[in-house]
Amino acid sequence: MKIIVVGASGTIGKAVVAALSGDHEIIKVGSKSGDAQVDIKDSGSIRKLFEKVGKFDALISTVGKAHFGEFAKVTEAEVQIGIKDKLMGQVNLVLIGRDYANDGASFTLTTGVLNDDPIRYGACASLVNGALDAFVKAAAIELPRGLRINSISPGVLEESLGSYGPYFKGHEAVPAKRVANAYVKSVEGLLTGEVIKVR
Amino acid sequence: MKIIVVGASGTIGKAVVAALSGDHEIIKVGSKSGDAQVDIKDSGSIRKLFEKVGKFDALISTVGKAHFGEFAKVTEAEVQIGIKDKLMGQVNLVLIGRDYANDGASFTLTTGVLNDDPIRYGACASLVNGALDAFVKAAAIELPRGLRINSISPGVLEESLGSYGPYFKGHEAVPAKRVANAYVKSVEGLLTGEVIKVR
Repeated sequence: MKIIVVGASGTIGKAVVAALSGDHEIIKVGSKSGDAQVDIKDSGSIRKLFEKVGKFDALISTVGKAHFGEFAKVTEAEVQIGIKDKLMGQVNLVLIGRDYANDGASFTLTTGVLNDDPIRYGACASLVNGALDAFVKAAAIELPRGLRINSISPGVLEESLGSYGPYFKGHEAVPAKRVANAYVKSVEGLLTGEVIKVR
Repeated sequence: MKIIVVGASGTIGKAVVAALSGDHEIIKVGSKSGDAQVDIKDSGSIRKLFEKVGKFDALISTVGKAHFGEFAKVTEAEVQIGIKDKLMGQVNLVLIGRDYANDGASFTLTTGVLNDDPIRYGACASLVNGALDAFVKAAAIELPRGLRINSISPGVLEESLGSYGPYFKGHEAVPAKRVANAYVKSVEGLLTGEVIKVR
């Protein structure tokens, strides 16, 4: 399969590339590095990405930013950071990518634990994850040509505990290698409309 | 209690006002009708609403639009309709309303069945409902001063079957009077961070 991995240089992305590259042609995409670049906040940039890399059999997105901060002070603009980046960035990868997807191709997006299990400072990220998990469930039943879509919802990564650990006290961390397995299942299996939780 | 009902002239809003007005002071808010008006897409309009009606003990929102249409043709702009209206409109009622909420006040937002049980043409609404249900769950644990927040997630209304029935074939419809009861429970009870499903 020809597989596009957006966020290939991230902690999850690197593990996903390692898990899939033995069997597949991987197009690594980053904001600055990789075989091609994209700014997921910009639908024009997403369109250029697909024009450059062409038809594909699987698109994986492991990217997306959201604001973290005390809810009592959260502003509309801070909520919008996650909506424009992690939410609409990934939704636009699907809306624009549809036209470049081969029959039977899959989309695999990334959400996370916070809509199931919220933490202090996490409301903006929870909102975005809930939106994406609902989106894949609904989009899946309408996608034509055998196209599939799932989200991967990991717990906090073991590799990220250095920076995020203080916010996820008591959460069970998961290694990126286990998380990568869920992307392999989404791409190589037949699931669609699923939120694949790795906890 | 002084209760602000945004969407007071709608199908759910009228039932909510009927259920609460015997025991409480109700401020009816509409886009054009009611005691005060608001355009929930405009944070300036929301701010003016609260400046006009002042402090409150409960804010209920029964409003919000989202795009319905074939997913294969959905555009970024159509996804944004629901994000700007039903999602950010209700989120901004909370973000701005916080400053006008008395200690222990409650926020009750409206979502719907489509993130649990998607239908053809419903992906944009599913996304918005999923975002809101996750938002209330996360915001609840951080709200100060005993403030509470819940969402009400009704199935398709019996009263709306004339227009929406063809899209909800096989769904169990619920009467607005039963749905209104969930708002009473949210306002008069002590629940917080809950998605109260009326199905």
